[in-house]
Amino acid sequence: MGEFELIRNYFAAAPCAQPGEGVALGIGDDCALLSVAPGEQLAISTDTLVAGVHFPGVCDPFLLGQRALGVSASDLAAMGASPLAFTLALTLPDVSADWLEAFARGLNEMAQGCSMRLIGGDTTRGPLSLTVTVFGSVPTGQALTRSGARPGDLLCVGGPLGDGAGALPLVLNQRSTEASTTQVLLARYWSPQPQLGLGRALRGKATAALDISDGLLADCGHIALASGVRLQVERERLPMSGALLSFFGLEQARQAALAGGDDYVLAFTLPPSELDSLVSAGWPVSVVGRVVEGQGVALIDDQGQDITPLTRGYQHFRETP
Amino acid sequence: MGEFELIRNYFAAAPCAQPGEGVALGIGDDCALLSVAPGEQLAISTDTLVAGVHFPGVCDPFLLGQRALGVSASDLAAMGASPLAFTLALTLPDVSADWLEAFARGLNEMAQGCSMRLIGGDTTRGPLSLTVTVFGSVPTGQALTRSGARPGDLLCVGGPLGDGAGALPLVLNQRSTEASTTQVLLARYWSPQPQLGLGRALRGKATAALDISDGLLADCGHIALASGVRLQVERERLPMSGALLSFFGLEQARQAALAGGDDYVLAFTLPPSELDSLVSAGWPVSVVGRVVEGQGVALIDDQGQDITPLTRGYQHFRETP
Repeated sequence: MGEFELIRNYFAAAPCAQPGEGVALGIGDDCALLSVAPGEQLAISTDTLVAGVHFPGVCDPFLLGQRALGVSASDLAAMGASPLAFTLALTLPDVSADWLEAFARGLNEMAQGCSMRLIGGDTTRGPLSLTVTVFGSVPTGQALTRSGARPGDLLCVGGPLGDGAGALPLVLNQRSTEASTTQVLLARYWSPQPQLGLGRALRGKATAALDISDGLLADCGHIALASGVRLQVERERLPMSGALLSFFGLEQARQAALAGGDDYVLAFTLPPSELDSLVSAGWPVSVVGRVVEGQGVALIDDQGQDITPLTRGYQHFRETP
Repeated sequence: MGEFELIRNYFAAAPCAQPGEGVALGIGDDCALLSVAPGEQLAISTDTLVAGVHFPGVCDPFLLGQRALGVSASDLAAMGASPLAFTLALTLPDVSADWLEAFARGLNEMAQGCSMRLIGGDTTRGPLSLTVTVFGSVPTGQALTRSGARPGDLLCVGGPLGDGAGALPLVLNQRSTEASTTQVLLARYWSPQPQLGLGRALRGKATAALDISDGLLADCGHIALASGVRLQVERERLPMSGALLSFFGLEQARQAALAGGDDYVLAFTLPPSELDSLVSAGWPVSVVGRVVEGQGVALIDDQGQDITPLTRGYQHFRETP
């Protein structure tokens, strides 16, 4: 128990662990207490990261802390929710003060960047894994779901695609490249920046939204299914970073943009009339296709030809087969 | 992905997965949405159970489903919260339809007994573990915390102690005994019944409360520390079940009651004037000691002598050293 008390101290001492706006009671009792403002709903999402499945078993604990919270907070962005708080369930094979200190620092840095507070959790002994549950608030009825896309809407994304998949060979030390490219791609993998501001800006504008975790085509499939529509993705309009293009070349970069996971960029549908105001306000919005009658997802080339690949899914990183 | 879609279907098909009171949006989007009634706060708790640490790696999945949710819901009882919903993060080494079907059935049965709905979660591949996050509501300012115990209060528990520890040799197949005793003790371990009604009845009456998960003495230490008082436990007043006494004998049963874990019975402090109304209303309340000035926890015998044991903690079940 002694070692695990140490862990609690790391997290309880974090500046984000104190009660504050929305947080009526933080760490240390049987439950945390959240106050939700009148007219607001609470948005909740849970994500688990398992060592060897979602991240390399041997990795920088500071970066792991950042990634664990960033990935989860992205689900709040996808609902248009304002972040409030999170819990952390941490399972560790053993306790290393250095590891914990670095992990807590990475977690706390992301928490402060997202204006979230750690309000509770559990620490157990076992194979390394983390479950983060995030809480945000959204005005009642204004949450961005996946089910409102309508024929005629534009299909948009909130930034360059494919960098998460582009980073994988670097994360796994399978390939190397110049330092500047490495830096950009690794940062996108280890420190995903949830698009919380964009998500809030989309309230009352976007008809459907989600964050891209399994690849653009696979995730667009979720919107198509929930909304009962067909999504057309235009290959020539995919936004991609210079880092990805220089590392992968055009063809492989496109593949990463379409079927790569771990981007944590928002994808959303938007009536055309809403586009100008978002772009004028400086939000990163790239139109990548449109919503039509029908079902499923299609990829089309610049001639309008259907070139949908057979494989759309994304195999998450795994160390073991 | 195909197998894991199967899993989602098991849980999404559960009767408790539909939107309802408090649950504005359930499984299937980036976040679930909870509505919290005006004047209420949301109580939140997260617990992880790891195979080989908190339960045997080979066990009945139906019972595991019951236990996973029962243990977590007990934290809501300890705050006096009314249960609303929960999320489940399930990590599995592989997917067996039989296992999942039985697990989901156990989980759903406990969920219905507690009036809770599954609103979301995550399913990942890896060493078997479960993280359950529970949500309840409590009138603002009425949550039962650990910090309000005052000298003069009675120290009470909500039922017999030690059965959880008494069950361990049976859970681990280390000992056997007659069928009726086995049945009682195993039920207490695998299907803990969170004292949700008692918790609500204690609102506005108890000055401090928690649920006993690490043993009476260790958990009383949490109340003593948070409240800045000393708790005296009277050995002769410990309530114990006939099943435990017949299986363990008096001395070992007392040891289980004092330092055994996994009981999930409430411990709480109560001004003496509140006792009669609770007992008259039929709530199971056993007085086991009192709150005095000072700090820490003391065990006293029937002569008032301090007989506090040196070892108070509880070693949770572990298969591996």
